[in-house]
Amino acid sequence: MTPTQVSLSFVTTEQFTNNLKIINRACASIPRKSGFNDEKGKNMPHNNKPHRLLHTMLRVRNLDTSLDFYTEKLGMRILRREDYSDGKFTLVFLGYEDESDATVLELTHNWQDSDYNLGSAYGHIALAISDIYAFCTYLEAQNVIISRAPGPMAFGPSEIIAFIVDPDGYKIGLIEKN
Amino acid sequence: MTPTQVSLSFVTTEQFTNNLKIINRACASIPRKSGFNDEKGKNMPHNNKPHRLLHTMLRVRNLDTSLDFYTEKLGMRILRREDYSDGKFTLVFLGYEDESDATVLELTHNWQDSDYNLGSAYGHIALAISDIYAFCTYLEAQNVIISRAPGPMAFGPSEIIAFIVDPDGYKIGLIEKN
Repeated sequence: MTPTQVSLSFVTTEQFTNNLKIINRACASIPRKSGFNDEKGKNMPHNNKPHRLLHTMLRVRNLDTSLDFYTEKLGMRILRREDYSDGKFTLVFLGYEDESDATVLELTHNWQDSDYNLGSAYGHIALAISDIYAFCTYLEAQNVIISRAPGPMAFGPSEIIAFIVDPDGYKIGLIEKN
Repeated sequence: MTPTQVSLSFVTTEQFTNNLKIINRACASIPRKSGFNDEKGKNMPHNNKPHRLLHTMLRVRNLDTSLDFYTEKLGMRILRREDYSDGKFTLVFLGYEDESDATVLELTHNWQDSDYNLGSAYGHIALAISDIYAFCTYLEAQNVIISRAPGPMAFGPSEIIAFIVDPDGYKIGLIEKN
């Protein structure tokens, strides 16, 4: 795209108004950052669309083991716990910030189910960590499985990542963020 | 726990100081909201533990179909797209807020993989929506599969929920939040 050149110095009111129109037209032609296309999404109720990612839910086999892992190994806080004796399941919400401010992790424990198939579709949750090497050393000492040692991402080496495994076999990405 | 009664009106400096001590002791005895146990987690490097949930990653079979679904049907914005021709995969990050502020969804498209097994372990991501009934009517008109019609949660009826299905079969929870 050829940029539209506009000078705003020493102009009359009329010239200024014209320049504004040129700027508006130029802005309208800039490709939008979002893939959201007003024409295609024209039927979406813009005043009533989802507005927040609340949580990611994972089923776990042994709740105590999982809570120990996410709190003691990964430093999350238990934010909410709901035991449904009629439905025979427990929901626990964990995270680093309050649910009103941030997306959290929901663990579901079905009291009568003992095993799940992890499949190949779901990937992982990723957590930010200041010093990934030191933290992986700590995790290793805590007998946490590190399935991918910390180091630069193979195809994007500016990012330092690692993968660990939770008690149910779910992968968890660690990404260094200072 | 019996609440500690403290009056702060018409007190001397000495009384005020004593009352502060009583308040401090009472606060210390309140069970902590968090399940984080300092004794058990004493080896955790408190100045270097994960501090943010960055994203949840899901593998998708057809990236264009998925992007259309998450932007046009669910109103997410595409925040970042990375095509790795050497690794033959594309990562797309989508969400309702910038990545610096909020947890987002990461879709991974492996160019040479055509199918995945969803398994039974992974649950869903959950999104907040103002009017869940109106939004599900909209989704239905857009031919989105609603696997659980909107209505009160069976065992916790104060929460109004629905479940929909994305193009790969991933469940997505909708929760009404005003």
